[in-house]
Amino acid sequence: MKGSEGDFISVDYTHPSAVNDNASFYCENNLPFVMGTTGGDRKLLVDTVKGSGTAAVIAPNMGAQIVAFQAMMEYASQTFPGVFKGYRLEIKESHQKGKADTSGTAKAMIGYFNSLGIPFEKDQIKMERDPEVQKNQWGIPEEYLSGHGWHNYTLQSEDGTVFFQFTHNVNGRDIYAKGTLDAIHYLDKKLHQGAKGQVFSMIDVLKGV
Amino acid sequence: MKGSEGDFISVDYTHPSAVNDNASFYCENNLPFVMGTTGGDRKLLVDTVKGSGTAAVIAPNMGAQIVAFQAMMEYASQTFPGVFKGYRLEIKESHQKGKADTSGTAKAMIGYFNSLGIPFEKDQIKMERDPEVQKNQWGIPEEYLSGHGWHNYTLQSEDGTVFFQFTHNVNGRDIYAKGTLDAIHYLDKKLHQGAKGQVFSMIDVLKGV
Repeated sequence: MKGSEGDFISVDYTHPSAVNDNASFYCENNLPFVMGTTGGDRKLLVDTVKGSGTAAVIAPNMGAQIVAFQAMMEYASQTFPGVFKGYRLEIKESHQKGKADTSGTAKAMIGYFNSLGIPFEKDQIKMERDPEVQKNQWGIPEEYLSGHGWHNYTLQSEDGTVFFQFTHNVNGRDIYAKGTLDAIHYLDKKLHQGAKGQVFSMIDVLKGV
Repeated sequence: MKGSEGDFISVDYTHPSAVNDNASFYCENNLPFVMGTTGGDRKLLVDTVKGSGTAAVIAPNMGAQIVAFQAMMEYASQTFPGVFKGYRLEIKESHQKGKADTSGTAKAMIGYFNSLGIPFEKDQIKMERDPEVQKNQWGIPEEYLSGHGWHNYTLQSEDGTVFFQFTHNVNGRDIYAKGTLDAIHYLDKKLHQGAKGQVFSMIDVLKGV
């Protein structure tokens, strides 16, 4: 394919079980790739690219604005540890019925809130997977009941006088498609600058450096 | 007073017209101070402290969590410029009837959103000052109609599939009293470490370094 068509960038949204084999194939054939597939042996994945002559963007979440919001929260948790001490936290999330596990985004957020001074465990997240409740109580549009990720974080001070709420609702997959295109453009630029054996994250893509 | 009572820290919540005269008085008498008063000549204020033998915490907003949230937004605007390009923004804020001008917090936020890729002008902020609307439409408790600051930032992607909302609602003044106490403790620590001619911000207080 490379011989007849010239250089190209592979996009991998496959299955956790294919992550490492696919990466080995891309690397052995000097094929740069953008991988949004989660799971597999993540350390081996990175090492495979680092030991190769090609480069990749690897990100478990390609939604640019969601990644930016997570980075904001990480920054706050590192810069202002304990600033929300004494606050009560509630985390609610809704995803399509098929999704069995807790949202990875919500789990990452727990770590940030812990650093900000709020004890909170994964099993305290209120998960919604019932399409009837999603439609009638959350107001999620019918056409997105089969594919959405809605997140809601509410903070309230001990005395009840201060209230914070952060919401990010994604319907469908357009945001990930757009982020994937951004990642392809970024990787193409890095390849032209001579990138080899390098793994880039979505944060790198957003920073654009 | 210093002669009979020993060292103390002054707390200044007075009037914009008193900012610079008060600062001169504190500095001439080697009185460290925490100033939450806004307005006056801010450059002169800082220079007065820098040329003195004492130190001060000066912050137009002493609400620790609000300051932390603003710092998060500033970080995002510097780290991910343009990441919300194409998004529609709505800013709504409600404050007690007496407050004539737009919220300073909301104005600062506009600058961050501009850097994040969204054109937005100060006069697009939807200001609410009518106690009836605040009570009946916003649900602001009656006892706080005379003192509150509610802020709401809504972002929606061009195609409508992605929705972000950030809310911070403050009732009364307890959050500022708590932040002022934090600032006093921080300044006391810095004075014991020998701070002289230094101005600290609420960000310094939150970082605790």
